[in-house]
Amino acid sequence: MSEPLAIGVDIGGTRLRAALVDRTGRLHARQEVRTAAKDGPEAVVSQIRELVAIVSAHAPRGQVAGIGVCSPGPIDTEEGIALGVPTLAGWDGAPIARMIGDALNLPVRLENDGIAAAHGEWRFGAGRGLRHLVYVTVSTGIGGGVVLDGRLLHGRQGLAGHIGHMGIERDGALCSCGTRGCWEAYASGTAFARNIRQRVAMESRSALAADAGPAEVFAEARAGDHLAAALVAEEGDVLGLGIASLVHLFSPEAVILGGGVSNGFDLLEPFIRQRLQTNAMPAFRDTILCRAGLGEDSGLVGAAALHFTEEAATEQDWRRRP
Amino acid sequence: MSEPLAIGVDIGGTRLRAALVDRTGRLHARQEVRTAAKDGPEAVVSQIRELVAIVSAHAPRGQVAGIGVCSPGPIDTEEGIALGVPTLAGWDGAPIARMIGDALNLPVRLENDGIAAAHGEWRFGAGRGLRHLVYVTVSTGIGGGVVLDGRLLHGRQGLAGHIGHMGIERDGALCSCGTRGCWEAYASGTAFARNIRQRVAMESRSALAADAGPAEVFAEARAGDHLAAALVAEEGDVLGLGIASLVHLFSPEAVILGGGVSNGFDLLEPFIRQRLQTNAMPAFRDTILCRAGLGEDSGLVGAAALHFTEEAATEQDWRRRP
Repeated sequence: MSEPLAIGVDIGGTRLRAALVDRTGRLHARQEVRTAAKDGPEAVVSQIRELVAIVSAHAPRGQVAGIGVCSPGPIDTEEGIALGVPTLAGWDGAPIARMIGDALNLPVRLENDGIAAAHGEWRFGAGRGLRHLVYVTVSTGIGGGVVLDGRLLHGRQGLAGHIGHMGIERDGALCSCGTRGCWEAYASGTAFARNIRQRVAMESRSALAADAGPAEVFAEARAGDHLAAALVAEEGDVLGLGIASLVHLFSPEAVILGGGVSNGFDLLEPFIRQRLQTNAMPAFRDTILCRAGLGEDSGLVGAAALHFTEEAATEQDWRRRP
Repeated sequence: MSEPLAIGVDIGGTRLRAALVDRTGRLHARQEVRTAAKDGPEAVVSQIRELVAIVSAHAPRGQVAGIGVCSPGPIDTEEGIALGVPTLAGWDGAPIARMIGDALNLPVRLENDGIAAAHGEWRFGAGRGLRHLVYVTVSTGIGGGVVLDGRLLHGRQGLAGHIGHMGIERDGALCSCGTRGCWEAYASGTAFARNIRQRVAMESRSALAADAGPAEVFAEARAGDHLAAALVAEEGDVLGLGIASLVHLFSPEAVILGGGVSNGFDLLEPFIRQRLQTNAMPAFRDTILCRAGLGEDSGLVGAAALHFTEEAATEQDWRRRP
């Protein structure tokens, strides 16, 4: 009998993705659709069933160990219940692990997306072989997950690692979560894009267009544009401010950056490191900084791989008993 | 044969304490001296030998399982080496676990003091029976330790939990660690005392004396003094600011407060909780807040108890091989 496979499902606010993954982290088939984010959990579960049917057709019969699902938090992964996901309408209180288990008749592992991505990077990406790492994803918001002492951290209800909502400025900028001063409100891709728009509107001597985003800023910074370089320096600095806190809190061997903003990792790294030099105690300054190895697949692969380890938040089988 | 005992040693910047502890966390003998903090590690190891001789005289021969030592960080507890402890002169690079092991010919477990105290509170104090907790000690500085998923967190070199150096204000107040904006620079007992002095100097209509400290402020707040009440509210607010970040980062069931400032826990709690209501996402707002159950003995007991569990950072025997 050949090696078992598992299916990873990544429920994003805009894209819903599924893939067939083997024990080495390799993707054998993948499929994606636009998430029916406004239509409630039943509609999304129906989409998941369709995607899973397509990718599982690539696996020999009976060889799929289960489905690993990751979703934007907060999701109570001990009980399998969504706690009110801002990007998905009507999910508050939905028993999504059971709904998916019922629809597919396969074992389900549910994980908050930052934790699933940390798991993926640890097993198959930039964190292979490490015992301690913090994964930070910088895109629309900032999320993350932590491996410490050779184990994936879950915390109460599987909610550890909501690192974007660490405060970095007392009563500071308004965050998407409704409170003020969160790291996410300063350093996320959304905050970076807002900062770019404001600065481009004030500065005429730059190649940046009025609607430039992070990708254009990285490109123009590489081409020598001064404003783009200054914007990269500011983003790196405020990323470094949060990372300096994270290394004191967790003492990881490495901080791994993923998400869209990590496309500019090589440009941002010197400024992140500069902040670590000034804001971290000497014992923490040599923490490794690196870019995610699996790109946008960290969560997808990490969720599937929960079926190959003891790292899941719960061992419960969510399928309805007969 | 009766139950084994272990000796806990708590190396403070001012007081050096040792106690004989049983498996239920009960202290059978204790002894303390003023730490020879300026005389280098050999002098302190010699003091430890004397204290241990006194407390171990209360144990039947051969019944001491080992010595658990905790010390202010940063200390590399994987290698047993001090990394430069601000309050202890000449400790930078000292192989203190081996020095203590050699001097006493007993197995040594070494732990950063915040982690040892978290262990003590988890096993025998306010955190008994929990799977996830953050221990916060607020005294001269702010330290801490974390239990997550039923395990004591260590991180690289056993340095996890340096929570006092989480930044709460960008380029803010100068901290004892040399950087700016750390939580400790705003909410420690030292910062609280500084704030008290400044406010008392500005305000004549208060019962507080010019040299009042946290203890006097708690007493006058209980007696209805308005300035004292305002100072308590401010301290509770800034404690809550950091705790709001901690619950997002770790997702504990409870946050346990120790250290001298926790003597005013009942007065501070409403303001800490108010900050949690405004700064924590709904899923985290019901986190339990409570006061340490072992008072100033959390670290002493937690360090000794490392000999009764698998929770130590390392299983290495530090005694010199023949």
